[in-house]
Amino acid sequence: MDSNRLQQQFAFILEADKEKNILRQTRLSDGTTHENDADHAWHMALMCILLSEYANEKIDVLHTVSMILIHDVVEIDAGDTYAYDAQGNSTRREREEKAADRLYSLLPDDQRDKLRALWEEFEEGKTPEARFARALDNVQPAMLNNATDGIEWVNHNVRLSQILCRNKNTADGSAVLWDYAYRHFIEPNVEKGRIIAD
Amino acid sequence: MDSNRLQQQFAFILEADKEKNILRQTRLSDGTTHENDADHAWHMALMCILLSEYANEKIDVLHTVSMILIHDVVEIDAGDTYAYDAQGNSTRREREEKAADRLYSLLPDDQRDKLRALWEEFEEGKTPEARFARALDNVQPAMLNNATDGIEWVNHNVRLSQILCRNKNTADGSAVLWDYAYRHFIEPNVEKGRIIAD
Repeated sequence: MDSNRLQQQFAFILEADKEKNILRQTRLSDGTTHENDADHAWHMALMCILLSEYANEKIDVLHTVSMILIHDVVEIDAGDTYAYDAQGNSTRREREEKAADRLYSLLPDDQRDKLRALWEEFEEGKTPEARFARALDNVQPAMLNNATDGIEWVNHNVRLSQILCRNKNTADGSAVLWDYAYRHFIEPNVEKGRIIAD
Repeated sequence: MDSNRLQQQFAFILEADKEKNILRQTRLSDGTTHENDADHAWHMALMCILLSEYANEKIDVLHTVSMILIHDVVEIDAGDTYAYDAQGNSTRREREEKAADRLYSLLPDDQRDKLRALWEEFEEGKTPEARFARALDNVQPAMLNNATDGIEWVNHNVRLSQILCRNKNTADGSAVLWDYAYRHFIEPNVEKGRIIAD
């Protein structure tokens, strides 16, 4: 007989597959298509493995990677909310709380509680691990937007003030990565008029 | 001034984005489209976090997740080789070695050596971590193939003997997961004729 535990774990793992269908505004570096939430989480996790040396504070890398891997699972129900969609962001928390209730409850109780806590930690952004994960969550799309000549910044008429507001805590996770991202991914696109200087 | 190190790290991270364009034979659970290598690695990494308790031997979870995250990077150059493509598999190692030489060399020397060693460890499958990672590499697509009524098994006329050969070491990574996968994902599709019983 199977344990109920294993059935619950596979129920969640199969449901998580739907994250691959949640498209983000960010395009892949070749500009052809948009990345999905699973792509994005994989890329951030890889960045965490390679760039953890630049976290402002010492971080537990496994804890941070685990947080990254699950940080967008709620979007299976709640959808992706674009960083600069003011209306969408006003209802985001409520939609995502409801999604977290349903999705994490598929798991056995101990893993439900563990993953839910990881997601809350990411959302709150108050631990060294959450600050670093959130820095990567901002640096990764900036890198891709720059690689595609800022097409999505242009398409959405994004202003520099919006990007700086979005990134107000990025340097708290990693001053080095924020400095690199600002100078290599953001500033050149302001100079070229792809980000509106305001 | 930027460190050369950080520039090399971002060169690799941006190049790795191409993994999202490498399509696999496996379809997503809703059957609409095929998963890509980044989707697959993310899903396996999530499974590793949730299912490590079923590894036959105690594993270092961060080491295993790191191995999983990078195990298909070589396919950026070498392409995906379908599990049951005999001709493709006869040249796979050579193509992937060449890809590993180019791709991992984008990184600083210490990370080049570390990631290359992780990939070799996965390929050799001789450590507890590699055995578990390889088990997940087989269980994850079996789960998705079952979820899509075995359509890709049918499309490729896959025989049970091929699946058993492919999975000859899966139980060495996790006897529990192999037993579950066999009874829930494989056996029912043999009974329904979607996998050829031979």
